[in-house]
Amino acid sequence: MLVLPSSTPLLSTALETAPLAPDGTLVLLGVLLTLAVIYLASKVGGEICARINLPPVLGELVGGVLVGVSVLHLVVFPDSGQPSLLLDLLGQTAGLSPEMAPAVFAAQSEVINVLSEIGVIILLFEIGLESDLNELIRVGPQAAVVACVGVAVPFAAGTLGLMALFQMAAIPAIFAGAALTATSIGITAKVLSELGRLNTREGQIIVGAAILDDILGIIVLAVVTALAKTGEVRLDTIGILIAAAATFLVGAILLGRLLSPFLVQLMDRLKTRGNILVPAVLLALVMGYVGQVIHLEAILGSFAAGIILGETDKREELFNQITPLADLVVPIFFVCVGAQTDLSVLNPANPTNREGLIIALFLLTVGILGKVITGLAVFGQEPVNRLAIGIGMIPRGEVGLVFAGVGSASGALSNALNAAIIVMVIATTFLAPPLLRVAFGGDRPPGNSTANPPDDAAVAAVANLTAAAEDS
Amino acid sequence: MLVLPSSTPLLSTALETAPLAPDGTLVLLGVLLTLAVIYLASKVGGEICARINLPPVLGELVGGVLVGVSVLHLVVFPDSGQPSLLLDLLGQTAGLSPEMAPAVFAAQSEVINVLSEIGVIILLFEIGLESDLNELIRVGPQAAVVACVGVAVPFAAGTLGLMALFQMAAIPAIFAGAALTATSIGITAKVLSELGRLNTREGQIIVGAAILDDILGIIVLAVVTALAKTGEVRLDTIGILIAAAATFLVGAILLGRLLSPFLVQLMDRLKTRGNILVPAVLLALVMGYVGQVIHLEAILGSFAAGIILGETDKREELFNQITPLADLVVPIFFVCVGAQTDLSVLNPANPTNREGLIIALFLLTVGILGKVITGLAVFGQEPVNRLAIGIGMIPRGEVGLVFAGVGSASGALSNALNAAIIVMVIATTFLAPPLLRVAFGGDRPPGNSTANPPDDAAVAAVANLTAAAEDS
Repeated sequence: MLVLPSSTPLLSTALETAPLAPDGTLVLLGVLLTLAVIYLASKVGGEICARINLPPVLGELVGGVLVGVSVLHLVVFPDSGQPSLLLDLLGQTAGLSPEMAPAVFAAQSEVINVLSEIGVIILLFEIGLESDLNELIRVGPQAAVVACVGVAVPFAAGTLGLMALFQMAAIPAIFAGAALTATSIGITAKVLSELGRLNTREGQIIVGAAILDDILGIIVLAVVTALAKTGEVRLDTIGILIAAAATFLVGAILLGRLLSPFLVQLMDRLKTRGNILVPAVLLALVMGYVGQVIHLEAILGSFAAGIILGETDKREELFNQITPLADLVVPIFFVCVGAQTDLSVLNPANPTNREGLIIALFLLTVGILGKVITGLAVFGQEPVNRLAIGIGMIPRGEVGLVFAGVGSASGALSNALNAAIIVMVIATTFLAPPLLRVAFGGDRPPGNSTANPPDDAAVAAVANLTAAAEDS
Repeated sequence: MLVLPSSTPLLSTALETAPLAPDGTLVLLGVLLTLAVIYLASKVGGEICARINLPPVLGELVGGVLVGVSVLHLVVFPDSGQPSLLLDLLGQTAGLSPEMAPAVFAAQSEVINVLSEIGVIILLFEIGLESDLNELIRVGPQAAVVACVGVAVPFAAGTLGLMALFQMAAIPAIFAGAALTATSIGITAKVLSELGRLNTREGQIIVGAAILDDILGIIVLAVVTALAKTGEVRLDTIGILIAAAATFLVGAILLGRLLSPFLVQLMDRLKTRGNILVPAVLLALVMGYVGQVIHLEAILGSFAAGIILGETDKREELFNQITPLADLVVPIFFVCVGAQTDLSVLNPANPTNREGLIIALFLLTVGILGKVITGLAVFGQEPVNRLAIGIGMIPRGEVGLVFAGVGSASGALSNALNAAIIVMVIATTFLAPPLLRVAFGGDRPPGNSTANPPDDAAVAAVANLTAAAEDS
C-alpha cells in the first residue's frame, strides 16, 4: 500500500478509500473489473465455441483477443504501451486521478499476471492429477522421440530455410528456428481434456512429449540467447540445466511416491475445512516454486505434484475440489494469452507486416509440418493416431512469444522477423484446437471413463459420498 | 512487467526468468512462497485450535501473527517498514538483486493484498449464500436496534470517558470513540459458521447487525475524518452515504429477486465447465465493485450477491462449489490480518506503550461492555441468547485498524492513543472467537441442518447428485 498523497483532501480520501489504504482500493477495483471482463469474455467465447463444435478453450482465447489489446482495449497490460479503457472507467466511477493511474495500472496488471500464472499452475496440476503415471512411463520412450523430433526438425528446417530462402543471417535465423521448437502444453492439454482424450494413449504421448518439449525449449532458449549475446555457448550451463530437469522430474515423482502415503495420512487426520485441498495446493505451490527456482518452470512442478497426488486414493476427491478452483483461475490464463495477442501485426497495410507475413507463412508451414511429422516418429506395435499426436504438438502459445520477446530484447531480430514469429505463434495456437478435434474425429472415445467431465464429476461425487458416509 | 535492466547479462537473465518476463517471475515466486507460508500457518494454527476446542479462525489469526511482522517476519508488508525474510530467501534462491528487491516486494505485497481482499469478498459471498433472507428480514428491526446501540454506546462512552478520565482533547477522543464502533463481520460470521450457529436466530441478528454496523462505521469514519480535518461536518455528504447504503442493499436484493430466475435459466443453458460458479462469482465481483464504488464496501456487494443466489435452487450446488474456493482464499485474509498485527505495541518496556496500555485497558473495557449490552437491546418475545449476540459484536478486526490508520494519517492521534486503539482492536479480535464459543455453550444447536460443514457438504452432495441424475 502506498502512502497517502498529501495534496488529497482527507475527507474525500477517507470516503473513497475506507476501509482500505488509498491505493489498495483502486487496485482492488481494477482487479475486480478486469476479472469481471475476463469471465464474461471466457464464457461468451467458450459457449459460442461449444455450440459450433469447437473446443471451448479456443473461445476463451478468441474472447481474450476481443477484450484485449487488439480490439476493445479492456484487458491490456502496461508493456503493450496501449491505454486501458477499464482504467478510464475507474477514473470516471472511482475517482482515479491521472497522476495515480500509472501506478494503479501497473499494480493491477501485476495482480492479473500472477493470477494468470496461478491459473496455468492449477491447470497443470489438474492435468497431472488426470494423467496416469504408469501410462506416462509406458509411453515415455515414445514421448521422448516425439519431443526430440519435434524440436530438431522445426529448428533445422526453420533456420536453414530462412538462411537459404530469405538470405537471412545465422543468428536471427537460429532465433526464429528456436521459436519453432517449444509446444504450449497448456493449450494442448486443455483441448485434450475437453475432448475427453487426455487419458488415451495418444493423449498421454502428447502430454509427455509436451512436458519434455517444454524442458527442451528452455534449454534451446538458453543456448540461443547465449549465442546471440556472446557468440558462444557454455556447455556447462546447458549440462546443469539438463541435469536439473532430469533430476527434478524423476526425483520429484520417486520422492513423491515414497512420501505421498504420509501426506494422505496427514489429510485424513486434519479436522478443519480444506483438509485435502489446502495440503494439495500447498504441495503444488512449493513444487512450482522449486521448479521455477532451478531454472525450469513452475508448471512442471505443479504437474509433478498432480501426478504424485493422482497416484493416491484422494485422487477423485481432490479432482472434485480442484475443478471449481480451476474453472475460476484457468480462464484468466487463456483470456490473458488472447488479450496480449496483438493482431495489428497481421495488418497488410503496413509494409513491415507484408514482409513479415511472407516470412510468417514460411514459419507457419515449417511450424505445422515440422510438428505433424513427429507423429510418424512414434514407434511401437499398437495402432495410434499419429496425425493427432503430431497436431497436438502444434500450438506454440505463450512459449513462442517468450522467444520473440527475448529475441527482440537482444536486438537480434528485425521487425519483420519479430512480427513473423508472432504471427506464427498466433496461427499455430488458434489452429491447433479445431485441427485436434478433427484429427480425433470429434467424438469421445468408447469406454473411456474420464471422457466427460460432468459425468466424471458425478462419478467422483458418488465416490466422495460413499467415503463421507463411511467416515461419519 | 518491467523492462530488463540493461546491466544484467542476457544469458543469466534468460536462464533465470524464461519463459516469463524478468520481474514477473520474481513476483510470482514471491507470491508462491508467501501463499505457501500462509497455508502452512493457517493449517497449523487452525488444527491446533480445533483440537483445543477453539474456533479454527482464531488459529489462523494467531498463525498469521506468528509468521507476520511481530514474530517470524515471513509475511510482512512494505508499509510496516520491516524487512521480509521471504525476500531474503528469494535473493538466495532465485537471484533477486538488492536493487530489484523493493519493486518485487511492493508488487508481491500488492498481489497478496488483493488476494486477501478477494478472500473476504468470497467469505461474505459464502455467508450471504448461507444466510436466510426471510430470517434476515424478520430479524431486521432487532438487528437495526442492536447495530445502533452498538455504535452509539461505545462511541459515547469511549469519547466522554477519555475526555473525563484522561483529560483528552475532543478530537482525539472522538476518533478513539469512533474506532470503538464498527464490528468486523468477517471474523464474527466465520466463527458463527464454524460453530454451526449462522442460521440460528442469534446468528442472523448478529450478521444483520454487523452488516448495518459496517455501514454505520463507514459513515462515522466520514464524519470523524471531516471533523478532524475541517472542524465541521457536511451533512449532505453524510446524507448521500446513508441514502446510497440503503438504496444499494434494498435495491440489490429486490432487483436480485426479480432477476435471479433469469440468471438460473442462464446457468442451466450454459454448456461449458463452471456454468454455475463463473456467473455466480461474476455477479459477486460486479456487485462488490458497485458496493465499493458508491463509497460502501466490496464485501457488502458480495454479501448481497450471496443472499440473492441463496434464494435460488442453485444454492446447494453453488455452496458445494464455492467451498473449495473459500477454503483456499479465505485463510489468506485471516492470516494477513494476523500478520499485519504488530504486537510490539504491547511491550511495556516502551514508555509510550505503558501510557497506551492504560488507555487501551479503558478502551477495551468500553469496547467489550459497550457491545455486550447491545444484546439487552434485543426486543421481541422469543427467547434469544442475548449474551451471544452482544459478544458476537465485539471483534473490531481490520475495520478498527482503519480508524487507527486514518487517525494517524490526520495527525489527530498521539502515539499512545494510536497504540491504545491498536491494542483494543487486537484484544477484541482475539477474545471474541473463544468468548463466542463459550456464550453459545460450545455445542451445536439441535436440529440445525447447517450446523456441521462436512455433514452439510454431504447433504449438498446428495442434492447435487440427484439434480445431476435428473439432468442427464
